[in-house]
Amino acid sequence: MTTVHELQTPALLLDPKALDSNIQVMAEALPGNRLRPHVKAHKCTAIAGRQRAAGHSLFCCATVREMEGMAAAGFGEDLLLANEVLDARRLGVLDARVTVAVDSEETLDAAARGGVGEVLIDVNVGLPRCGCPPGQAGALADSARRRGLGVRGVMGYEGHIVGVVPRVEREQGCSASMEILLQAHADVGGELISAGGTGTYACNAWASEIQAGSYVLMDTAYANLELPFVQAFWVLATVISLGDGFAVADCGLKALGMDHGNPTIQGARVWFCSDEHVTFVPEEPVAVGDRIRVTPAHVDPTVAYHEVFHLVDGEQVVDRWPVDLRGW
Amino acid sequence: MTTVHELQTPALLLDPKALDSNIQVMAEALPGNRLRPHVKAHKCTAIAGRQRAAGHSLFCCATVREMEGMAAAGFGEDLLLANEVLDARRLGVLDARVTVAVDSEETLDAAARGGVGEVLIDVNVGLPRCGCPPGQAGALADSARRRGLGVRGVMGYEGHIVGVVPRVEREQGCSASMEILLQAHADVGGELISAGGTGTYACNAWASEIQAGSYVLMDTAYANLELPFVQAFWVLATVISLGDGFAVADCGLKALGMDHGNPTIQGARVWFCSDEHVTFVPEEPVAVGDRIRVTPAHVDPTVAYHEVFHLVDGEQVVDRWPVDLRGW
Repeated sequence: MTTVHELQTPALLLDPKALDSNIQVMAEALPGNRLRPHVKAHKCTAIAGRQRAAGHSLFCCATVREMEGMAAAGFGEDLLLANEVLDARRLGVLDARVTVAVDSEETLDAAARGGVGEVLIDVNVGLPRCGCPPGQAGALADSARRRGLGVRGVMGYEGHIVGVVPRVEREQGCSASMEILLQAHADVGGELISAGGTGTYACNAWASEIQAGSYVLMDTAYANLELPFVQAFWVLATVISLGDGFAVADCGLKALGMDHGNPTIQGARVWFCSDEHVTFVPEEPVAVGDRIRVTPAHVDPTVAYHEVFHLVDGEQVVDRWPVDLRGW
Repeated sequence: MTTVHELQTPALLLDPKALDSNIQVMAEALPGNRLRPHVKAHKCTAIAGRQRAAGHSLFCCATVREMEGMAAAGFGEDLLLANEVLDARRLGVLDARVTVAVDSEETLDAAARGGVGEVLIDVNVGLPRCGCPPGQAGALADSARRRGLGVRGVMGYEGHIVGVVPRVEREQGCSASMEILLQAHADVGGELISAGGTGTYACNAWASEIQAGSYVLMDTAYANLELPFVQAFWVLATVISLGDGFAVADCGLKALGMDHGNPTIQGARVWFCSDEHVTFVPEEPVAVGDRIRVTPAHVDPTVAYHEVFHLVDGEQVVDRWPVDLRGW
């Protein structure tokens, strides 16, 4: 059997027990269709399979490629592209129930021309990103219905507050955003009020379904929020060089999402990252050849660099799951 | 013929005229083997082919996968892995002249066990990363020769000063680093003194060969250095949503290296990036469906996210070159 010491590094490690624990905790809090797992963080149909086994069969994607991969892997019961696209033709041909977010006449046109049958009206609830002004949601839904599209409801991502550390502020922000979304929903109709993420899954009681994804793997940014989820993945690296008071491992900018800052290494202070290196100051001596675990600051753009998760039980590598939903 | 308006976005665009101009300018400054082009920035054997056509036939890599891909594509005349590895077995079987950097007895052992025949002694010239202390370089070379390895010379990357903006300071720093490297070379011997990068190619007169790579494509960080190279690549994105005073395009954290900060968009102020989005404030109105060019702050980790360069002549897409050296 392979051990982590034989893996080519850098390599994504996944602890399936930690993964299953996270999936279980979430499934108890948001059973069945109360959760629409977002695949963008893990980009892995094998992980989606674990989420479905826990009771969630409706999924959420951020890219057309994720939608294609999920449909091809048999997850086509109800797939939501929670993002705007101007060319929906690859969506219209999928063997799946496909719903796409729209926030303008142009994106609504694209859905209709691409052969997509159903839409969610994406509403801006405070995050300066996609979503129509709340007061225009009803008119957009009417326009969609006039074009023969099914309108399943509204979507509104409170992404500006999912990372707010003080819990009370996060809850207040969530409440304010969802008040906006509910008003829009009154104008739009439909059975779905889709919102939320890992940071607000516990306090967003207004949405009919929560679009959480990062909870399965976690990262150091989400770890600050005191959520009941544990770190389930790391980048394995090899110590390749020792300097005067520092060490260097082979896990750099091309193996890590860096927008949330440096990764962390237990028992060490991370100094800086280069393309293929992390320079760090260990508390206890390390040796050239040692394997270390690097915990990324941001899960999503980290996973997107890698081809495969190596499932580990301690030092043993027990399985490999492809990161099969990369790209666009 | 395809135009950029038909491309799935985000998509890497490459201007072959700008690329060839950059390659030509560098080939005039550092002809033939005075340059050992580093492939880590472009990860593309087709671009390596253009560099070879301009007279450079020795190449430099940062990962084993890059070495494998270059050898398989017929670039095996003289390939340097300018990085330390603890498992060199995949290098030893390549159909190529392979040299690997070593900075310790452990990495030297790995080279010998892996069947690699030749090494460069990597010397720390000031950057806290890889490289042995200068005073130990001679002993390491002796040890390598005792084990039957060929010692081709020294390598020392002045990476701590390649990005220093004031030119005089950059030149002074380069001089100080190369003084260290030349002293080590006197102890090591061999024909190669390998160093440098895009930021110091013009002032590093001490190295026998310069390991520059970013110059072919450029980015906004290197653009600050007043180098004679032009921006040759961008991430094409589609405007997918308009907000109150801002616009959103489909080019986010998974399409951009973010360690040097936000990308830039001509005629706009970039506000922030999310996983699949950039929110920006345009000076002139934009419309949903418009295509825009996003200029990354750091070329290397940006290219590593993408599968293909789309070569463009104005709005026309004239060719596709795979980014075929990704991964490890």
